[in-house]
Amino acid sequence: MYREKIKVLDCTIRDGGLINNHNFDEHFVKAVYGAISEAGVDYIELGYKNSKELFSTKEFGLWKFCDDEVIKRITDGIESQTKISVMVDVGRVNIDDVKPKAESPVDMIRVASYVKDIDKAIHLANHFDEKGYETTINIMAISRDMGPELDEAIHQIEEESAVKVVYIVDSFGALYQEPVEFLVKKFKQVIKTKEVGFHGHNHQQLAFGNTIEAIIHDANYLDGTVYGIGRAAGNCPLELLIGFLKNPKFDIRPILDLISREFIPLREKIEWGYIIPYAISGMMNEHPRAAMALRKSEKKENYREFYESLVDTDAD
Amino acid sequence: MYREKIKVLDCTIRDGGLINNHNFDEHFVKAVYGAISEAGVDYIELGYKNSKELFSTKEFGLWKFCDDEVIKRITDGIESQTKISVMVDVGRVNIDDVKPKAESPVDMIRVASYVKDIDKAIHLANHFDEKGYETTINIMAISRDMGPELDEAIHQIEEESAVKVVYIVDSFGALYQEPVEFLVKKFKQVIKTKEVGFHGHNHQQLAFGNTIEAIIHDANYLDGTVYGIGRAAGNCPLELLIGFLKNPKFDIRPILDLISREFIPLREKIEWGYIIPYAISGMMNEHPRAAMALRKSEKKENYREFYESLVDTDAD
Repeated sequence: MYREKIKVLDCTIRDGGLINNHNFDEHFVKAVYGAISEAGVDYIELGYKNSKELFSTKEFGLWKFCDDEVIKRITDGIESQTKISVMVDVGRVNIDDVKPKAESPVDMIRVASYVKDIDKAIHLANHFDEKGYETTINIMAISRDMGPELDEAIHQIEEESAVKVVYIVDSFGALYQEPVEFLVKKFKQVIKTKEVGFHGHNHQQLAFGNTIEAIIHDANYLDGTVYGIGRAAGNCPLELLIGFLKNPKFDIRPILDLISREFIPLREKIEWGYIIPYAISGMMNEHPRAAMALRKSEKKENYREFYESLVDTDAD
Repeated sequence: MYREKIKVLDCTIRDGGLINNHNFDEHFVKAVYGAISEAGVDYIELGYKNSKELFSTKEFGLWKFCDDEVIKRITDGIESQTKISVMVDVGRVNIDDVKPKAESPVDMIRVASYVKDIDKAIHLANHFDEKGYETTINIMAISRDMGPELDEAIHQIEEESAVKVVYIVDSFGALYQEPVEFLVKKFKQVIKTKEVGFHGHNHQQLAFGNTIEAIIHDANYLDGTVYGIGRAAGNCPLELLIGFLKNPKFDIRPILDLISREFIPLREKIEWGYIIPYAISGMMNEHPRAAMALRKSEKKENYREFYESLVDTDAD
């Protein structure tokens, strides 16, 4: 009953890093890498490959930069078939920091891009492809950009890029099932030589449901995170996705152990999940920025005022 | 863009009562009733109409019995278009406790039934119909009973009962979108003179997504609860459902206020929501009974052992 082509990518450390400035300690990352490997998950994404000229190593943790030596310290001594992924943002990476694949523990580089930056994203992805990496382009904030410019972007990716996968990224947690169906079908009409992926956000408790919807319409690359950790409301919980997929290569038990041991205590220290201001951001198709600021203020539980502040924004 | 026929029922007090023995105080119930009324929600369900010969009023709170006088104390002085619903379980109600509609503040009686008890449910519902109430039959635990006996039950309901709505109830939070589609389509093929309803449970974070799925396939009666409160993982969050439906008669703001004021403090005292043992119960298509017992034990965070205890159950 399972679809063999489906690949699952765990981005716990990468997306989770957005809520703690990428400051996971190496013990924790090793525990995650070990459990993900034991669970048989196809890929693990450990962070961003950002330029140290643009971001301070004092302000941000190791997983904002993902030096090859740091990755090797994590993977050393752990048996694993899980491939390593890192993400780069258009305009934030120094391509000279990225060695040829033969000299690096990294297997895949995912380029995150808005629709407007797609030319730059294709350029970057093709550069990493030439260096020997698997590559993807992840189209962020897609709920704000579903018209003709998106059409042009996916045609360009199909025709001009060497990427393996093109991801639909619901950054604002604003998509419902019908828009997911619309987007996956649109992508599948154009993207014939690559796979389609889906990365959900959980602002409206739809990350998992939308991932199932993407699977139904033939997206084969799927992102999840342990216990749904990630910016704002977080992502599709990996344990639910593994529970849903019937592929016997997956084993949910190491992930359950990991949640018991590491994520229940972590959730006491940092916040993600179903929180009303993030739900409101999703309903309004807004970046969760304002909601994240609210959660750090004294008005953190003042939902009505927050809702009204978004409704009343002038659109002139 | 909205579908006028859609009716929303808030069952906060009824399903929420399953986690505190129906012991909400009158101040709290009045706050919920006021906000639900102001939000323009069509129905509010306040609890069960159980026989006091079967259940002790010392052990259980007011909302296990829903005396008419108690309901009147709540509704008095609050302007409202919201209709009042109560639920009865097959075998737990004394029909002589239910006065004719003309003498009662209750508008609707929903009969909860397993497939095997459908004859009794029809008998009860028809009795309440004759007393002047709107009635429904809610088919519980449907994920365990999707074969020929369900077919027979829905044919019987269509042909022999006077109910207004037949609900699909995913008691175990086990349904994914495709089974929801299958069930709603099956119901719509048979149920021609009544509406189809959907009541989701949130064990796998799918209560809202499945409710949208039910809407897509033409279910028109939808249950939700404030902040998703309800047994185990809880229900479809009413605020998400109201945010999704575009009917201008709804106003989300009173519900946001209610969550800020009443539900954030309440959630510190009683537990519901995304909790791994409930997710495991959903994946396994099991009643959350064992998971609820686990959460009251010292092993409450021992997820792997709990998972293995369900996997290893002999089915001989």
